[in-house]
Amino acid sequence: MKNVLNRVVPDDCTPFQGANQLISQGKHKKLDPIQSKMTQKQVESITRLFDLIPITDGMTLSFHHHLRNGDHVMNMVLHEIKRRNLSHMILAPTAIFPVHEPLVELIKNKQVVSIITNYINGPVADAISEGHLSGLLIMDTHGGRPRAIESGELKIDVAFIACPTSDSKGNGNGMEGMSACGTLGYAISDLLYAKHRVVITDHLVDHVQRADIDGSYVDYVLEVQRIGDPNGIVSGTTKPTRDPIQLKIARDTLKLIDELGYIKPGMSFQTGAGGTSLAVALDLKQKMLERNIKGSFASGGITGFLVDMLESHLFECLYDVQCFDLDAVKSYLKNKNHIAMSASKYGNPYDDPIVNQLDVVILGATEIDLDFNVNVTTDSSGYLIGGSGGHSDTAFGAKLTIITTNLTKSRTSMVKDHVTTITTPGESIDCLVTERGIVINPRRQDLIEKLKNTKLNIVTIEALYQKAIHMTGVPKPLQLSKKVIGMVRYRDGSIIDTLYQVGGKSS
Amino acid sequence: MKNVLNRVVPDDCTPFQGANQLISQGKHKKLDPIQSKMTQKQVESITRLFDLIPITDGMTLSFHHHLRNGDHVMNMVLHEIKRRNLSHMILAPTAIFPVHEPLVELIKNKQVVSIITNYINGPVADAISEGHLSGLLIMDTHGGRPRAIESGELKIDVAFIACPTSDSKGNGNGMEGMSACGTLGYAISDLLYAKHRVVITDHLVDHVQRADIDGSYVDYVLEVQRIGDPNGIVSGTTKPTRDPIQLKIARDTLKLIDELGYIKPGMSFQTGAGGTSLAVALDLKQKMLERNIKGSFASGGITGFLVDMLESHLFECLYDVQCFDLDAVKSYLKNKNHIAMSASKYGNPYDDPIVNQLDVVILGATEIDLDFNVNVTTDSSGYLIGGSGGHSDTAFGAKLTIITTNLTKSRTSMVKDHVTTITTPGESIDCLVTERGIVINPRRQDLIEKLKNTKLNIVTIEALYQKAIHMTGVPKPLQLSKKVIGMVRYRDGSIIDTLYQVGGKSS
Repeated sequence: MKNVLNRVVPDDCTPFQGANQLISQGKHKKLDPIQSKMTQKQVESITRLFDLIPITDGMTLSFHHHLRNGDHVMNMVLHEIKRRNLSHMILAPTAIFPVHEPLVELIKNKQVVSIITNYINGPVADAISEGHLSGLLIMDTHGGRPRAIESGELKIDVAFIACPTSDSKGNGNGMEGMSACGTLGYAISDLLYAKHRVVITDHLVDHVQRADIDGSYVDYVLEVQRIGDPNGIVSGTTKPTRDPIQLKIARDTLKLIDELGYIKPGMSFQTGAGGTSLAVALDLKQKMLERNIKGSFASGGITGFLVDMLESHLFECLYDVQCFDLDAVKSYLKNKNHIAMSASKYGNPYDDPIVNQLDVVILGATEIDLDFNVNVTTDSSGYLIGGSGGHSDTAFGAKLTIITTNLTKSRTSMVKDHVTTITTPGESIDCLVTERGIVINPRRQDLIEKLKNTKLNIVTIEALYQKAIHMTGVPKPLQLSKKVIGMVRYRDGSIIDTLYQVGGKSS
Repeated sequence: MKNVLNRVVPDDCTPFQGANQLISQGKHKKLDPIQSKMTQKQVESITRLFDLIPITDGMTLSFHHHLRNGDHVMNMVLHEIKRRNLSHMILAPTAIFPVHEPLVELIKNKQVVSIITNYINGPVADAISEGHLSGLLIMDTHGGRPRAIESGELKIDVAFIACPTSDSKGNGNGMEGMSACGTLGYAISDLLYAKHRVVITDHLVDHVQRADIDGSYVDYVLEVQRIGDPNGIVSGTTKPTRDPIQLKIARDTLKLIDELGYIKPGMSFQTGAGGTSLAVALDLKQKMLERNIKGSFASGGITGFLVDMLESHLFECLYDVQCFDLDAVKSYLKNKNHIAMSASKYGNPYDDPIVNQLDVVILGATEIDLDFNVNVTTDSSGYLIGGSGGHSDTAFGAKLTIITTNLTKSRTSMVKDHVTTITTPGESIDCLVTERGIVINPRRQDLIEKLKNTKLNIVTIEALYQKAIHMTGVPKPLQLSKKVIGMVRYRDGSIIDTLYQVGGKSS
């Protein structure tokens, strides 16, 4: 079967029908969260925990990625799965990082057979790309995952909630303790809806002042030596780019936002932690200060740059699903208007999400095609190198969605006739800013109209594509095998694309 | 039947068996909260709301008292009940104030036949005291009420949640808008467990930054002109006493706390907004500053005095179930460690409540008896003048519970052989401070031991009683009728005392 974007998807799935088709019908099932009935919650070891629940073959275990590449918790659980020789387990972590390499062996041994996640890179991504996962990989979005959980579509048997601070009842937070990581937005749906909920902490205290994890929902509390490595948890300070091409892209992006009238009182804004994005944020700050403009909010993963804008009174508040650096963690500790949000409140289409309030979002792309479909899931060899995260959610919700990217990287064009994998549908993308010109999606005639008298270098995507091809030559068609390794699930639960094993032959 | 305190209670109730008897058995039923399934929530009038739900004879309607004596919401609903000539309604407001006088007529007309509340004074209290309520009045505690709600013992058909700010989905808070009152702790159990949940607001906005009321649980949103009168909502500035007798009591109270070693790093503290209590807080502040002591938290209804201590870094945080004044509202807006708590988190015995973490609480009494039982529900004529509120909850939870009161008021002794009504059992009371001496409950031999070498004027309660009688004469025995008008329900759900109609004869 083919979906509306002409991508082949499995016959038994709901095919993608357009970004708002299913959502606007409002047919969504939402279960009620169930509170814990446990009174004695502390368990002395992970082994005891596996015995108590008990954790058996074929169960679905979930994790969140606030400890990022410093996470010890998933590996701890994987170690126990290996030790017990459990098989056919399903994992549902919100993201998978290089630190999770031990998972590769379990995948190869069929101890882990399916994975549902929003983002994946490193050795596990490579192993799956090469066809080692015996079942399927489902790539969700940050907002789609809570939707799948609350509707009962994604049933989690045991949620492991890494908690940098907790009391013995499981009231916890991420802002204190030696493994402090800030907000815990990705863990909330798991906490509310998983069948068994386990808090794992390395900082057990008598009393937690501000409990972002509500102990009413926690069944077990496990104290361990370390839940993570601080060096991997938060990056030191992320830095704006110094690359002259990326700086030009950042400047042009800000000019574009300005020309479109979005630098105005009450504006809301989201950007990532990449170098170009941070450069845009820095330029935006300057412009807002010059014009004495106060915005309403910035959202997403939060960096020190956004904190600085909050503290300079350029935004009324920050909505934070995850802290990207230590400045963000510190700000969450002290600033009242640095507000935690769950992934559901961030992007779940049925939870009146913050993304729907967004004016402007700046996003990246590994590929973008002539129909503006964006790939951030695979590279142009077909290897998994990321995933939507909040890409599709914010692109859908924001009034103005801008993709920034170099036109070419390593002698490859970022603009393709067709992207390898569709992560976000072209209908959600409004503008593309490259060093060789700015493209406005023809679907947005209103924007094109507004920009017709500007000095911005507005070009068509076809022209950009030709320019790139002229420099790089026509790329060789990518050889992917026909073996399906997974699916990209759009935020509404429909399948937007299929993932194939890399390499010319099926293994 | 008589309970363990020798009070006659109805045969079909659970009699009070001791402050911790039922709770320590841990046999508590807790239902799961149910989220709203409504999508279109806004209704145009209260009349339409009554039609939609529909609200019919005999239903139980609940309210919260954060708007205090400025509340318009309960009166709005009462007006509609009257207009529709509904009958046999049951009301479950968290408190009833003089402003609710319109309720008297509905009581007399049997349109309202039973009331469950935690605190009551003014004309409604008088009418019930005089026997006009055809059914019973149940007096709960602030912590007992959420226990009754979550266990299904108190079933609420419709919860009316006065919300000084809300969006159209019912995401709301109490900190913004013209009727701002601060935190909304008393409304939370109603929000989670009532069959229908209505947010009433006079400040409907597009987007609520910090939602203390979670719209997921809200079924209807009703916008009205005014939900309250700011003059009645928050008192201006409450003032410490200047009365020399009360000042002496305050000073002696602080000395007592000090002698018992409670002025120490990490101390936690609660007191009310009365003049003597505030004088104790002021003295405590001075002492903590002198000794450079930092406590952990202050809790309860929060005043500007406690905010000042927070901002002077004398406490790490405030736990706030209700803001008593504008300084507290302002602080809740800006201070990250000014933390909202639900009534359940405040005092529900089964919710690991904050009261259980308290070191010291200072409480009042309208009467205290030779067994240390305290009455704050009725005056010595038997008229209803208040109720437990958090009295029994904090008295049970705190390590040191001190009652402060003048020994005599208006030529009446505050120490009685038996109190008119038992609100809080004597076993929860540790000390009594009066201008004529300090009494330590003989149950606390550990405290008596600690104090044996101090200069404090420690006396027995019998000695105080004799002293008072000597001044005031032996009081005439109170003539209450035998007509039962209600019951005092202890926080665990057992009946600690019975309420009788005032006057010698049954009406």
